[in-house]
Amino acid sequence: MGMTMTQKILAAHAGLSEVKAGQLIEADLDLVLGNDITAPVAIHEMDKMKINTVFDKDKIALVPDHFVPNKDIKSAEHCKCVREFASKHDITNYFEVGQMGIEHALLPEKGLTVAGDVIIGADSHTCTYGALGAFSTGVGSTDMAAGMATGKAWFKVPSAIKFVLTGKLSKWVSGKDLILHIIGMIGVDGALYKSMEFVGDGIANLTMDDRFTVANMAIEAGAKNGIFPVDALAETYIKEHSKKPYVIYEADEDAQYDETITIDLAELKSTIAFPHLPENTRTIDEVGEVIIDQVVIGSCTNGRIDDLRITAKVFEGRQVDKRLRVIIIPATQKIYLQAIEEGLIQIFINSGAIVSTPTCGPCLGGYMGVLAAGERCISTTNRNFVGRMGDPKSEVYLASPAIAAASAITGKISGPAELGM
Amino acid sequence: MGMTMTQKILAAHAGLSEVKAGQLIEADLDLVLGNDITAPVAIHEMDKMKINTVFDKDKIALVPDHFVPNKDIKSAEHCKCVREFASKHDITNYFEVGQMGIEHALLPEKGLTVAGDVIIGADSHTCTYGALGAFSTGVGSTDMAAGMATGKAWFKVPSAIKFVLTGKLSKWVSGKDLILHIIGMIGVDGALYKSMEFVGDGIANLTMDDRFTVANMAIEAGAKNGIFPVDALAETYIKEHSKKPYVIYEADEDAQYDETITIDLAELKSTIAFPHLPENTRTIDEVGEVIIDQVVIGSCTNGRIDDLRITAKVFEGRQVDKRLRVIIIPATQKIYLQAIEEGLIQIFINSGAIVSTPTCGPCLGGYMGVLAAGERCISTTNRNFVGRMGDPKSEVYLASPAIAAASAITGKISGPAELGM
Repeated sequence: MGMTMTQKILAAHAGLSEVKAGQLIEADLDLVLGNDITAPVAIHEMDKMKINTVFDKDKIALVPDHFVPNKDIKSAEHCKCVREFASKHDITNYFEVGQMGIEHALLPEKGLTVAGDVIIGADSHTCTYGALGAFSTGVGSTDMAAGMATGKAWFKVPSAIKFVLTGKLSKWVSGKDLILHIIGMIGVDGALYKSMEFVGDGIANLTMDDRFTVANMAIEAGAKNGIFPVDALAETYIKEHSKKPYVIYEADEDAQYDETITIDLAELKSTIAFPHLPENTRTIDEVGEVIIDQVVIGSCTNGRIDDLRITAKVFEGRQVDKRLRVIIIPATQKIYLQAIEEGLIQIFINSGAIVSTPTCGPCLGGYMGVLAAGERCISTTNRNFVGRMGDPKSEVYLASPAIAAASAITGKISGPAELGM
Repeated sequence: MGMTMTQKILAAHAGLSEVKAGQLIEADLDLVLGNDITAPVAIHEMDKMKINTVFDKDKIALVPDHFVPNKDIKSAEHCKCVREFASKHDITNYFEVGQMGIEHALLPEKGLTVAGDVIIGADSHTCTYGALGAFSTGVGSTDMAAGMATGKAWFKVPSAIKFVLTGKLSKWVSGKDLILHIIGMIGVDGALYKSMEFVGDGIANLTMDDRFTVANMAIEAGAKNGIFPVDALAETYIKEHSKKPYVIYEADEDAQYDETITIDLAELKSTIAFPHLPENTRTIDEVGEVIIDQVVIGSCTNGRIDDLRITAKVFEGRQVDKRLRVIIIPATQKIYLQAIEEGLIQIFINSGAIVSTPTCGPCLGGYMGVLAAGERCISTTNRNFVGRMGDPKSEVYLASPAIAAASAITGKISGPAELGM
């Protein structure tokens, strides 16, 4: 019986010629990731188990990004714990403040995630690297500890849903709209413990940044992972960013899928997830008047250079609504610098937005834009659960950078069309 | 009997031809300032007193800058309170996130503080505007409430210490070194409830940013205010930034001073305040080896364009010590933009520092660089009290941007001379 792309990667890393959905396997890991919230827990687990070594100092990535620069004494202690662990074990890929960025934007940029890899990360959006044809998935801190110690992890081999993408996205419609559309269609548990495998000639029309966004939010449909085939564009990205060897896996022609869903990208409209679940989607023409208080453009989902370019295109020559706080967060130092070189940051500041240093901050109500009761934010982030960005009585609307940017100008949820664009 | 510069400003605002040190007067206010920490307390005071109007919507400045973009739900509620008050009373000078900056850098830049003004602010560093020949001083939130309601405040007329400045600062020695030197000499209560009046031909050799820094830290010697004569440079600054009428007051020739202290600027060395008081000063040659963990360059004391230019000069072509977190905070959106246009921000990022949106953040242990136990920070901020930047067991060393920048490169407290500059 044929295997899906995900299954082929897992089989190869388990030293097996074949795996089946539901099978328990132990796979070799190419990378184990943790951040300033999850790594300290994993480190304490290792301490408790009296494990004093790591399996490979080059295959662990530690990225303080959630509450750095330290937002309070507690986060300072957590970062100190990670820093001391990295120093003790001479971890190659520890990224101190100043060399860092949001983990899921940073690792591909640093060339640490390539096609064919098996990657676990103690962060739910670790699935992002599926954009490069890797199997990557979020785990708990205990699994991270075991991964750092042994270089291996147990997985139940997932079954898969095949998404056949055709056609080309319209102007202002992006990867974010695609994944929100899918989550709206199948629900937040629509792909529970499954792979979301994307195929079809429409993929050639998606930028790498679109694909990162789509893979990033696979978890919001409950998926174990999201994964794209490795085409010329993906290979070019990998070669430009990494010296690691990579392996391209393809699903067998007779691979089994639980379901096949075909989506014509040309038919998609800008899509917004209303509170309090990513599945509560409406297209821009169904939104009605939703007055907002804050706009956040950034995160591991949409803080990449394409996202900032789109925002700048909408902002150029315009001012944000004076009632609003508009917070823009380049996802890495490199993206930040590139955005300055392209004149984007200048546009943001001239428009009345603020630009933050790279951080997860507001996405999880950490800092840099926490909401008071009754406040509404439109955000390019990935979750809009109750209280996600602050007070339980606040609201988060998830959208693409184009929609968030246009909304920043009008003060209510809007598309660029309302600006005559 | 002659009056000091401060006394002449106060007399004019009290409608009196003469005032004497120790006299209680009621003076008209040209500006009443509050921020996101203090204004909510003042607003609640007004509510308690059932005061529903403000004396002049053009003469109140509300600047959320300490914990914005909101660092948590509590700060979000505080900012919401200020925002709603500003909206209700149509406050002209309410500065929303995106239009803002650190209050004491922002108000002069916006032209709200000019020579001859009497200004109170519910923030201790309100004394900054003395650089422009204004009488400005920090007050409590209740005084701020009364000021917003009536446009008047009671003062006990201060006596004064005269500081006669001669000569010219050496390379890498700045206004920060001057004020730290003075505080080291007279102590943190050396000017308690007095004016610090600066005179002498050395003033012509101080930039406006030097003067802002000196006046800003007058409170750290316990002073009621610090004040500079209005020379051609100050007038040019005022005319470039403000359309407000201004009045130049000069001390009478026979003004009485408690003390006169003469300082030859040429003799000053780079000066660092060791934990845990600004008076614990040592010159750079007396420092010894002090290994640091973090560097902060910013704040109402040293977040201006001159400070960033000096930092960039030290950073250019160099990398910060990889062990360190180096946090640079332009004090206003305008300074931030100018720093991009001059290529300074690019230098910071390329050197491995991070650049924050304007905020007071780390200076008061708010966010954006809070210290864990045992950590040491060299900082261009104004206070190094126990626990000021985080854990009570952390340490803050106060210094100029030149010293902080050189220390960022070496990882220990250093001057540019150690870099061969």
